Amino acid sequence: MSRAKALSGRMSALRRLMRQRHVDGVLLTDPLNVRFFSGFAGEDSFLLVGRRWAMLLTDGRFAEQARLECPRLPAVVRKRAMAPVIAEAVRARRVRRLGVEGGHMTVGLKARLDRALGPRRCKVLAGQIDALREVKDAGELAAIRKALRAAEGAFKALLAGGARGLVGRAERDVAADLDHRMRLAGAERSAFETIVAAGAHSALPHYRPGATVIRRGDMVLIDWGAVVDGYCCDLTRVVFTGRIRPDIAGVYDIVLRAQSAGIRAIRAGATCASADAAARKVIAAGGYGEAFNHGLGHGFGLCVHESPTLGGRATRRLRAGMVVTVEPGIYLPGVGGVRIEDDVLVAAGGRRRLSRLARDAEAMVLR
Amino acid sequence: MSRAKALSGRMSALRRLMRQRHVDGVLLTDPLNVRFFSGFAGEDSFLLVGRRWAMLLTDGRFAEQARLECPRLPAVVRKRAMAPVIAEAVRARRVRRLGVEGGHMTVGLKARLDRALGPRRCKVLAGQIDALREVKDAGELAAIRKALRAAEGAFKALLAGGARGLVGRAERDVAADLDHRMRLAGAERSAFETIVAAGAHSALPHYRPGATVIRRGDMVLIDWGAVVDGYCCDLTRVVFTGRIRPDIAGVYDIVLRAQSAGIRAIRAGATCASADAAARKVIAAGGYGEAFNHGLGHGFGLCVHESPTLGGRATRRLRAGMVVTVEPGIYLPGVGGVRIEDDVLVAAGGRRRLSRLARDAEAMVLR
Repeated sequence: MSRAKALSGRMSALRRLMRQRHVDGVLLTDPLNVRFFSGFAGEDSFLLVGRRWAMLLTDGRFAEQARLECPRLPAVVRKRAMAPVIAEAVRARRVRRLGVEGGHMTVGLKARLDRALGPRRCKVLAGQIDALREVKDAGELAAIRKALRAAEGAFKALLAGGARGLVGRAERDVAADLDHRMRLAGAERSAFETIVAAGAHSALPHYRPGATVIRRGDMVLIDWGAVVDGYCCDLTRVVFTGRIRPDIAGVYDIVLRAQSAGIRAIRAGATCASADAAARKVIAAGGYGEAFNHGLGHGFGLCVHESPTLGGRATRRLRAGMVVTVEPGIYLPGVGGVRIEDDVLVAAGGRRRLSRLARDAEAMVLR
Repeated sequence: MSRAKALSGRMSALRRLMRQRHVDGVLLTDPLNVRFFSGFAGEDSFLLVGRRWAMLLTDGRFAEQARLECPRLPAVVRKRAMAPVIAEAVRARRVRRLGVEGGHMTVGLKARLDRALGPRRCKVLAGQIDALREVKDAGELAAIRKALRAAEGAFKALLAGGARGLVGRAERDVAADLDHRMRLAGAERSAFETIVAAGAHSALPHYRPGATVIRRGDMVLIDWGAVVDGYCCDLTRVVFTGRIRPDIAGVYDIVLRAQSAGIRAIRAGATCASADAAARKVIAAGGYGEAFNHGLGHGFGLCVHESPTLGGRATRRLRAGMVVTVEPGIYLPGVGGVRIEDDVLVAAGGRRRLSRLARDAEAMVLR
């Protein structure tokens, strides 16, 4: 599918949503949505969409980029504040009811628009626009696969020499090294702040790598992801510099079985809660139910955290083409934590694991 | 000044603003403001401040980090959606009028709060809270200086071998290299996507580095910054791999003189517009007035772009302790662009240049 065709399909879906929500215009303010529907990847620019027209509202810094990235889309190169430019376009195009992004537009901008257009012109749309990004097309999946190959290649290169790649180095130096290797492998940037957590630090799900030096015999949790063509991936592995303590080996085995159960529960038509429940059941049966204190996973794409959420209360159903992380964990404060995270594509009859790194405990022990 | 004393001074300033704006509570939603007023550097957490109390609204992922980073601040570790947790705290503390951040709170969250608290409980504050971050204290300046030393050290290391550091390499590989060197020099991350723009690409102020290979005889614009302890810096240099074309040498000279004039115009009490005008006058006199198509500079700190703005219409006055970039540029489409950017501290009697890299054309020619 060509890029132009993909963009035109997305616009059609947006216009169907507009008809359902009884708006004849939509203002996209989230830069990820601007990019998704127009192809424009710059900043500080909004996309205004009508029933049969669309325009990019940008400024001089991005005019050239707009010409290159979305040559068919008319661009208004503004020289003054955004709100009056939006208001003028809305009036000129005779938009009667303008949908705005509830999860992104600020109350400050909304107040300025209300003053310029009257208080009843805007209608807040909550989440429906983001949801149009959930099912990925072939081009998006190709970018996600490229991001995965960059992230996996960097991880393998980091550990190609075994435990030497970690032992004696500070957590934050290992994180910087992994980030750099992703760039060399083709990533535009890291998808988020890479976590490298040694020993008991691995028990903190959102640890920030510090000056702690990794020692022989440590467990080291690494959570990292690359971005290629704007698309993210998200992986976690726990590696062991020399040996696995028997108690941690037991925990690792439970998390690995929980992840497999979670992945097996993923298929088009299943609820998001059911995958979470399948993994949680394994961890609870192992006696660590309380120590799995977050949801099973989340969608990802242009943003590293997108809908859907795989959590205990998520009654929505998975659809073919969604991509989600599957990342159960057991966290033992003061001892350590094990999380294993892979990226999975929901398919009609089941699922496909997009990430390819080994997961078994033996492969995680670095000599 | 101790960190605790700095935080308490910031809270006092916020409470003075609350009295002026007739609110008895403020909800901080921008993570940079949460960090500035509480010291908490995690995500997805809000700070609720009353006349004589404050509390952090966070979740289990960040409870440990909150204990470490702000041990004296009570934390509510929420297990459900944010809006009802905010509403409950607002009611329990009997807040009658709650200030919210107009430039950050989303219309979606505001609508949920209005439903929970009644439509007249929230008052939108526009920009006044961000303005409390404009004047930097000694601790903030120390972090900014550390960021500058990391950024400058990385730049010097990149070019220590002369033109060899650039020639034959793709723009994006040079950018990745510079980013990595900043991390090795102590930066947490890059302050923004590093720009490395070879030849005519330097004429695009927001160019994204690509596969173009830098050749001998090219001009190369590099715009980069580091983050240390959360604080940013922002620098630009144009270097020449071998020689400067005579026409570009003339442009370089004008931009350098414009930057010096802009820096000289900075002092406490001067308007933000006057510094811009001083630099613009030099460029206009050189015949390139139209080619300087952006403002002279901007404040920076926890965010790389903060108020104040040094622009043609900025009537606000500079105050001692503000830090701003000074970055005039001349952009010639299809030919190239020159921008020279340094970071400057506004002082009572004048200003101090915080960045120390050489600027003269001769030093920019790499052999």
